[in-house]
Amino acid sequence: MEKRARVLIDCEDAKGLVYKISKVFYDRDLNIDNNREFVDKEQNRFFMRTVVTGLFDVNELLEELKSVVPDDAHIRVIEPKTKKIVLLATKESHALGDILIRYMDGDLGADIECVIANHDTLRDLVERFDIPFHYIPAEDLSREVHEAKVMEQIDQYTFDYIVLAKYMRILTPKFVKAYPQQIINIHHSFLPAFIGANPYKQAFERGVKIIGATAHFVTDDLDEGPIIAQDVIPVNHRFSWKDMQRAGRDGEKIVLSRALSLVLQDRVFVNGNKTVIF
Amino acid sequence: MEKRARVLIDCEDAKGLVYKISKVFYDRDLNIDNNREFVDKEQNRFFMRTVVTGLFDVNELLEELKSVVPDDAHIRVIEPKTKKIVLLATKESHALGDILIRYMDGDLGADIECVIANHDTLRDLVERFDIPFHYIPAEDLSREVHEAKVMEQIDQYTFDYIVLAKYMRILTPKFVKAYPQQIINIHHSFLPAFIGANPYKQAFERGVKIIGATAHFVTDDLDEGPIIAQDVIPVNHRFSWKDMQRAGRDGEKIVLSRALSLVLQDRVFVNGNKTVIF
Amino acid sequence: MEKRARVLIDCEDAKGLVYKISKVFYDRDLNIDNNREFVDKEQNRFFMRTVVTGLFDVNELLEELKSVVPDDAHIRVIEPKTKKIVLLATKESHALGDILIRYMDGDLGADIECVIANHDTLRDLVERFDIPFHYIPAEDLSREVHEAKVMEQIDQYTFDYIVLAKYMRILTPKFVKAYPQQIINIHHSFLPAFIGANPYKQAFERGVKIIGATAHFVTDDLDEGPIIAQDVIPVNHRFSWKDMQRAGRDGEKIVLSRALSLVLQDRVFVNGNKTVIF
Amino acid sequence: MEKRARVLIDCEDAKGLVYKISKVFYDRDLNIDNNREFVDKEQNRFFMRTVVTGLFDVNELLEELKSVVPDDAHIRVIEPKTKKIVLLATKESHALGDILIRYMDGDLGADIECVIANHDTLRDLVERFDIPFHYIPAEDLSREVHEAKVMEQIDQYTFDYIVLAKYMRILTPKFVKAYPQQIINIHHSFLPAFIGANPYKQAFERGVKIIGATAHFVTDDLDEGPIIAQDVIPVNHRFSWKDMQRAGRDGEKIVLSRALSLVLQDRVFVNGNKTVIF
Repeated sequence: MEKRARVLIDCEDAKGLVYKISKVFYDRDLNIDNNREFVDKEQNRFFMRTVVTGLFDVNELLEELKSVVPDDAHIRVIEPKTKKIVLLATKESHALGDILIRYMDGDLGADIECVIANHDTLRDLVERFDIPFHYIPAEDLSREVHEAKVMEQIDQYTFDYIVLAKYMRILTPKFVKAYPQQIINIHHSFLPAFIGANPYKQAFERGVKIIGATAHFVTDDLDEGPIIAQDVIPVNHRFSWKDMQRAGRDGEKIVLSRALSLVLQDRVFVNGNKTVIF
Repeated sequence: MEKRARVLIDCEDAKGLVYKISKVFYDRDLNIDNNREFVDKEQNRFFMRTVVTGLFDVNELLEELKSVVPDDAHIRVIEPKTKKIVLLATKESHALGDILIRYMDGDLGADIECVIANHDTLRDLVERFDIPFHYIPAEDLSREVHEAKVMEQIDQYTFDYIVLAKYMRILTPKFVKAYPQQIINIHHSFLPAFIGANPYKQAFERGVKIIGATAHFVTDDLDEGPIIAQDVIPVNHRFSWKDMQRAGRDGEKIVLSRALSLVLQDRVFVNGNKTVIF
Repeated sequence: MEKRARVLIDCEDAKGLVYKISKVFYDRDLNIDNNREFVDKEQNRFFMRTVVTGLFDVNELLEELKSVVPDDAHIRVIEPKTKKIVLLATKESHALGDILIRYMDGDLGADIECVIANHDTLRDLVERFDIPFHYIPAEDLSREVHEAKVMEQIDQYTFDYIVLAKYMRILTPKFVKAYPQQIINIHHSFLPAFIGANPYKQAFERGVKIIGATAHFVTDDLDEGPIIAQDVIPVNHRFSWKDMQRAGRDGEKIVLSRALSLVLQDRVFVNGNKTVIF
Repeated sequence: MEKRARVLIDCEDAKGLVYKISKVFYDRDLNIDNNREFVDKEQNRFFMRTVVTGLFDVNELLEELKSVVPDDAHIRVIEPKTKKIVLLATKESHALGDILIRYMDGDLGADIECVIANHDTLRDLVERFDIPFHYIPAEDLSREVHEAKVMEQIDQYTFDYIVLAKYMRILTPKFVKAYPQQIINIHHSFLPAFIGANPYKQAFERGVKIIGATAHFVTDDLDEGPIIAQDVIPVNHRFSWKDMQRAGRDGEKIVLSRALSLVLQDRVFVNGNKTVIF
């Protein structure tokens, strides 16, 4: 039966990669529905994302692709399957709510396994959508102990990505290491401006004329992970920092949802501390 | 000696085109520096732009490419060469001036052969840059007669593109036909809003909150040609239409220069009444 | 007891209006918290929005203001009170959902009285928020008969504004007349481009590089009412019209919510077929 | 004879300021053409810009205004007069060229007294516009000695503002102090991101998806002065840092020219380390 798959390859650049890879598809009589490549010349690294349709066995295709690309290649052949996500949140509903509405609409492209929060504020909203809500308070707990509880809860689920929908706690290296390239965060500034706490207050103090939002993969370095999407909103002297925060929420939720959509469609490669997005 | 060329192909879509074309490059031991493709599924049309380096004869490469793609294919192998443009203008200096500054800076990527205008206003500016300025007044002349004089002047030059840098006259089908896909215009609205005369006045009357600019290839249908680039600028109730015009000028010049840059880099394919831009 | 009110005045322009109006506030010992004026010179019309705090009787203040401004003045002294809205929708959830999440969050600045829809699709979503949902099918009914049923339902409620959250039916002049300057619509293009049905398909056919959304008051002329807010989203040749529609949804919901917020804060004056927004 | 003036007032906020100031205009039978105020509640500071027309003596008006506002008030009554600017540049022509074209067009709203540069590269361009060009090389000179020469040259001219059109040298506190709130700079990033040298390289290394430009008044703290205008440009993984630089130039020149225009129209108040812009 005819199948469809997304083929993602990244490897050291070499002569003839497009030819060799497209030959594999051609020889197997696969249709290329969509194809994009990029070569990072500075890192000498090749990236390719192809959507193929036809008759194929995933493992055979994988093996054959392996035989034509450099040894260091990272190859994925991804068949259509609804991905699963776990959401972490705190008290704010805008980013979470945007994802919930898309989910209900069938527009999210993922199943939401659960929402975990360090406050109980969002329970009512989440449970209205029949999604499990786990309240794990952090009060009186060390960061490590609280996080261990969160991880224990997370690990009850199978999932592809963890989405921090305004989760206002810093993650430890242990947590980050446990889910490599799987954690997506929304930071409420156009990074690298206003790293750290309360970016809107920082923006207000600095008197900027634009504020922004940044969705990125989480790495050990706070607010330093590979950026997936960014957007900005104009502000002026009439904005208090609360006004900036209010205006910024729209940017935050749209940028997070856009980044999540790109990731769920397997359009995002991590390239060192950057991303390649097709 | 090693050469570099841009290879542009557009043709009916068919199975294996990426493979077949990349095989030609591979067999000739050419390096692919940059490669982008697109398939317009609705029109069943394939577009590809590849930058290759290596040892090759242009005609041989062209012949070999022809042998692997559908008969209707339009193939260009373009070697590095500074393109030439002719500018048409009227009285306003912003779009023209932006191109002149880029030209002087070596940033334009083209030689300016001359400026032709239906007013003498811009002579001083143009001649400061040692560029021939031809004043061809339209007063008391029929459109046809005036245009014949303009064409006569234009045809003194060899050039790749005619750029209408706020040339405020409508071209006849005869003119348009003489330079197919070679005429680039900047229209001072985000088309298709405000087609025709004085778009800023129209925008003011309508009370819009954004104004824009559109660079497009000129076809017989006024303001209906394939769009290359567009941008917008926010406005509000405090803007008179003159204010909109003033604010809009920045958009116009940037959009025209950006479109021109894309065209000069051979990044723009015309696809029916649309463009494909790599 | 100290009170707070928004004072909105629009009238024929005349010398000394700012002085005379601010004198009323000064003589009554009211604080001006915020003050903005605008004079439309073309229409010779004055607009002013002032937030005052202090001790005052609304009717007395109103009378005194009347005595210092031209006879045609439209004066409102609005005390803080949560406004009420009625939502009309069809099948799409994004614009409606965005308003629901803001409502639940306490961020909307209005109470939602009910949602009325010509399809039953959104019932589940709406009822999860404990908001009355009225399904009034249009099938087999003339526009007039269906609308009469909708109006009958609407008139069960008291409300300040009717918000068309992607209500995909054209309203008759009778309906529009019944709720003057009270109906807010979101149109899925940057008006006046792509008036009428399926703007995304129109945008796709035209090959534009930006798409947009426009929130406006509804008047008798379809898509011609005073514009409150607009925004745009960049697109390119890779977008099908379905992709444009998907991308455009974010713009639509943000623009509608932003327009609604401005209206609910009494920041929007209608000025002929335009708006003045403070 | 009827005159026109811009009245700019900033002072500690107090009750009745709008009333008292507009009373002065009313009593003198002056027309208010345009009026905007703002109160910075955090700093308890009042800002007002009014355009008045009528019969008045500037000094008398000034005295009368002084008598109704707090003692700390900074009042300016500015009659129409073409302002004068001095430009500092290095090698790049885009920002300088944009200003030159506007100047030639009569669109700048200022006379250019001269261009001073630490390289001779731009001489040809500048002299084509009949503007004095002073080349003051910095090679083999200490910062202090070079700057003393620049100041000596500057002080040959009378001027209102010094515009740094991509002047790639850091100014000493002595220089900054000599021209308080008179020096406008364009920084090639959306500050406070990428302070310091080569922001595009920094942006490239960080993998951002937007780059920007910031026009600001120069203060002692490098890149920390009050921001006048900012804008951003989208980029992606295909951009080298040279591409970012090229794309960023358009933003730089537009932002600088926009900021300069606001300043020349006396629309910009400095408020601590921020600006209030009417």
